[in-house]
Amino acid sequence: MVAKPIIIDCDPGADDAIALFLALAFPEQLNVLGVTTVAGNVPLNLTQKNARCLCELAGRSELPIYAGCSRPLLRPLITAEDIHGRTGLDGISLPEPQMPLQAQHAVDFLIETLLQATEPITLATLGPLTNIAVAIVKEPAICQHIKEIVMMGGALTQGNITPSAEFNLYVDPHAAHVVATAGIPLTMMGLDVTHQAIATPERLSAIRAIHSPISAAMLGLLAYYGARDMQRYGFSGPPLHDPCVIAYLLQPDLFTSRRAHVAIETSSELTMGRTVVDWWHLTEPLTNTNVVETIKADAFYQLLTHAIAKLSQG
Amino acid sequence: MVAKPIIIDCDPGADDAIALFLALAFPEQLNVLGVTTVAGNVPLNLTQKNARCLCELAGRSELPIYAGCSRPLLRPLITAEDIHGRTGLDGISLPEPQMPLQAQHAVDFLIETLLQATEPITLATLGPLTNIAVAIVKEPAICQHIKEIVMMGGALTQGNITPSAEFNLYVDPHAAHVVATAGIPLTMMGLDVTHQAIATPERLSAIRAIHSPISAAMLGLLAYYGARDMQRYGFSGPPLHDPCVIAYLLQPDLFTSRRAHVAIETSSELTMGRTVVDWWHLTEPLTNTNVVETIKADAFYQLLTHAIAKLSQG
Amino acid sequence: MVAKPIIIDCDPGADDAIALFLALAFPEQLNVLGVTTVAGNVPLNLTQKNARCLCELAGRSELPIYAGCSRPLLRPLITAEDIHGRTGLDGISLPEPQMPLQAQHAVDFLIETLLQATEPITLATLGPLTNIAVAIVKEPAICQHIKEIVMMGGALTQGNITPSAEFNLYVDPHAAHVVATAGIPLTMMGLDVTHQAIATPERLSAIRAIHSPISAAMLGLLAYYGARDMQRYGFSGPPLHDPCVIAYLLQPDLFTSRRAHVAIETSSELTMGRTVVDWWHLTEPLTNTNVVETIKADAFYQLLTHAIAKLSQG
Amino acid sequence: MVAKPIIIDCDPGADDAIALFLALAFPEQLNVLGVTTVAGNVPLNLTQKNARCLCELAGRSELPIYAGCSRPLLRPLITAEDIHGRTGLDGISLPEPQMPLQAQHAVDFLIETLLQATEPITLATLGPLTNIAVAIVKEPAICQHIKEIVMMGGALTQGNITPSAEFNLYVDPHAAHVVATAGIPLTMMGLDVTHQAIATPERLSAIRAIHSPISAAMLGLLAYYGARDMQRYGFSGPPLHDPCVIAYLLQPDLFTSRRAHVAIETSSELTMGRTVVDWWHLTEPLTNTNVVETIKADAFYQLLTHAIAKLSQG
Repeated sequence: MVAKPIIIDCDPGADDAIALFLALAFPEQLNVLGVTTVAGNVPLNLTQKNARCLCELAGRSELPIYAGCSRPLLRPLITAEDIHGRTGLDGISLPEPQMPLQAQHAVDFLIETLLQATEPITLATLGPLTNIAVAIVKEPAICQHIKEIVMMGGALTQGNITPSAEFNLYVDPHAAHVVATAGIPLTMMGLDVTHQAIATPERLSAIRAIHSPISAAMLGLLAYYGARDMQRYGFSGPPLHDPCVIAYLLQPDLFTSRRAHVAIETSSELTMGRTVVDWWHLTEPLTNTNVVETIKADAFYQLLTHAIAKLSQG
Repeated sequence: MVAKPIIIDCDPGADDAIALFLALAFPEQLNVLGVTTVAGNVPLNLTQKNARCLCELAGRSELPIYAGCSRPLLRPLITAEDIHGRTGLDGISLPEPQMPLQAQHAVDFLIETLLQATEPITLATLGPLTNIAVAIVKEPAICQHIKEIVMMGGALTQGNITPSAEFNLYVDPHAAHVVATAGIPLTMMGLDVTHQAIATPERLSAIRAIHSPISAAMLGLLAYYGARDMQRYGFSGPPLHDPCVIAYLLQPDLFTSRRAHVAIETSSELTMGRTVVDWWHLTEPLTNTNVVETIKADAFYQLLTHAIAKLSQG
Repeated sequence: MVAKPIIIDCDPGADDAIALFLALAFPEQLNVLGVTTVAGNVPLNLTQKNARCLCELAGRSELPIYAGCSRPLLRPLITAEDIHGRTGLDGISLPEPQMPLQAQHAVDFLIETLLQATEPITLATLGPLTNIAVAIVKEPAICQHIKEIVMMGGALTQGNITPSAEFNLYVDPHAAHVVATAGIPLTMMGLDVTHQAIATPERLSAIRAIHSPISAAMLGLLAYYGARDMQRYGFSGPPLHDPCVIAYLLQPDLFTSRRAHVAIETSSELTMGRTVVDWWHLTEPLTNTNVVETIKADAFYQLLTHAIAKLSQG
Repeated sequence: MVAKPIIIDCDPGADDAIALFLALAFPEQLNVLGVTTVAGNVPLNLTQKNARCLCELAGRSELPIYAGCSRPLLRPLITAEDIHGRTGLDGISLPEPQMPLQAQHAVDFLIETLLQATEPITLATLGPLTNIAVAIVKEPAICQHIKEIVMMGGALTQGNITPSAEFNLYVDPHAAHVVATAGIPLTMMGLDVTHQAIATPERLSAIRAIHSPISAAMLGLLAYYGARDMQRYGFSGPPLHDPCVIAYLLQPDLFTSRRAHVAIETSSELTMGRTVVDWWHLTEPLTNTNVVETIKADAFYQLLTHAIAKLSQG
């Protein structure tokens, strides 16, 4: 099997960090062409730095890391330091990264890489979709070179930043609209799925047993990050949103999904950023999205444990 | 126990019919002061006539029936003949009603009855909220005389007329906004609950065994009404939306619920009529609604069977 | 000539007061069937009282005055005490009215009078359109009995409460939408016209010379009311919005107008209540409104002077 | 006097063509660093080609011309072939351009030029603001290097594509929102001004007398372009929108203006793209825009005649 070429667009962030670990553990399956960063959980100057810290920790300092857009298309930037801490990676302390930030803008890396690709490339998006949307508007020809966008974002039921909206789509609903209307195959990994992937103490115990810098980092991040969600939702551990996207690329049979039309609300403040999913095909005969519905959570944590163990062995 | 005074506002409709049967079966518990009708499932001239047919069939031809608003506050009327048939009661054939339609407008009956009441009155609303909203705008003083509004309407998850909206709220979202912001205690019986109350063949078998004109009417209505929902949602029978409201008044312990803030979307066509429920208390510290979450469906059908049997004995 | 039957719906208010004087001065032309009041410039309890004070001052204590809606359809009531003073008639001091407030609700007076009318009736609306909209929703059959609605409201250019909206339509944009889409002949007297009808000292000098209680009341009201507008707009006197509606009914040749389609913005806060006038027939082939464009201001003040003089003679 | 460095962003288009002639006629005043093109009046492949044709005709084949965004940020592209013809320059026939299109994307030319500039640069925008908005989102640091944006767009009164909106802002209202909220000094040249700059036969007679290829091109374009506007608005000639922007840069004393806050409607379809100008400072204490109000039209046409004559002499 040839490794699937992907670009990871992210805003680390605790769960982005674990998603990166998962993606980097299986180079035989995922050929990470680059990591692009965007403002989201924390501002861009932190997300790009965090991405470098994490790749370095994962032993992949040769990976090209790009900084992208520092603000959403239209709305003022909202960040989530209350969840991820002031640095975005609170709960652990990593040294200043030695690996460089690429000079090229993330948007241009996306455009150039896609236009030059000999096979379609998969985009794994873990944050607001600003970089992808700006790339699409700047160079619409990239769309036909994108094999699929697997996006962490949205919700069928309740949002997590407003009753209507999930954080990534609320931060830049207009970018999400651009992506959802671009004709690109889209898989939506929403809160309804990721809230099934709870990091309970039991599920983390095998990772705790690995005793490596990477397992320690993961557990340190989760200890900080988990506190609020557990209190708010009454969960027995924090949900791991972003790693679900990578797990879907590695092992799609862990998930079930349904094709449906998804539109993004950009008109009303009350419902701003809502993923309007036509689950019952009431109004839209066409479907533009593969909406993930369930995850086999235990198997997902086994995959994650395997990844952390593999990555810890270098 | 003194019977609870209620007014039923409805747009019969198959499930309204069954809700009326349920309400009229227990006069020792529910003192139905009047039935007000509104345009919804079918136009007003049919809903008022159907209400009279149904009360007559239930042996309650002395009940005052009122016609209310024939159109929503702002939007053109949408009806649901595809679900309820051309008459609103397709599947059965009832004689022309002999009982009269009251001359007074439903809005004025609501206002007059509420202002003159010696104890607060409960409103059971089974259709679009136009009558209630017009009464509130015309005479805001009624609000303090309403004990509670128990409303069939809304959805936490998926709508049934659009991906965002349930039919009753989509037909008149502005009326729903008036009701939700009036400071009246509100219980929301949304699709998430009513879709748990499926009329499976097993659950209907006891009603089938009653062999009365009323049980026959109920089964005839369900045979017609059920066809579409079963196909669309893959249910094993049609959901009984409106009767859940009456069951909640008769036996609230069949239900669980959570207090939350509910706002109604009136700005965006994409999400028009959405009940934005702040389930996790993310943005609204105040709660204005008792959002019903679950129903004990088997016990509900036992109650319904008991009602049909009781009513059949006259 | 038979006097034209009209109902005046108003929220006095300084310029409403002068409009009432103008209307009552010519009973041979305008047969005022009743005055309905609404919350607007000040709350309803003041507008109904002010209407009675003013009719009494004009020697018409037999006129039936009705109180209508105390709140807009959807939005919280906004009032304009900054313009009209705490009482709505600041600048003068009138005795408590002796003439009664009718027991009937303004909405029901409108419905009953229209349904029973042997000829179509003209509505002159000087405030938010709540009463008219509630009457239309409660009894749509009234529409065919309305000869015309001549409405003070809206703006082709700039609003006066927001950049987009004129006060009357901003207070209840949803009511305005109901009226504009009801298929009733509509004449819009917007700010662009009324701002041409400036009460300059020169124009008021003839009224000042009348030296009657009514001329004194008019001048007292204008002295208070005029202060703010003169400062804000740099006018040489206050504009007389509401009297333009009555002048149009008395002497339409004082005005020029153009037929166009008018829609009311109810979706966006930024433009809420905007009268979207398709002046150039760009998007709407149909026209629903007679949009007044110009007024012969000097002749208008001559008419007004004549009215005050006539009324002062009793 | 040192020539003012400017970049012209345009979508030629007949009036863009004349604006380019005007700008290129006075190199001692305006140092045109480059011409960037965008989809608007016609698609991008035509606007970039037309820009090259026109610069070549004006004898400025050394000017760098860039192609930018081929679609608006969010909305499907709307074009104006009904006004400008199928080619965008209907009414004349120009040879295929020999001068090259630059390989660099217009957005990157804008960013690079602004970031490297030793003095702030003025942007003259004659079309939808997509290029400028994408540059701002991609690299917000450019804002402080922009001396001013002088934009043809918007309307205080009536739009020309909908009752609410002027064409350039309707095509990409979201881009206009980005520009209006970026903190950049902004001058708005709206329809209210440009409709004062009518190309009457009298005003064109001096240009007609020049008898050069450039004057012939201008007259040919106007003959085609003028037909529709003259019919729609009853004008005695077509308005020259875009040249007003250049005239403002050359001779600002031809114009009067007022500082006000301008916001762009992006929520409601009815008013989409409306420039909400707080002309009376009703709601916004801050002003972000210099709103042009009047033009001395005769002097403007004298300037234009001088430009065409000067350019015709090479």
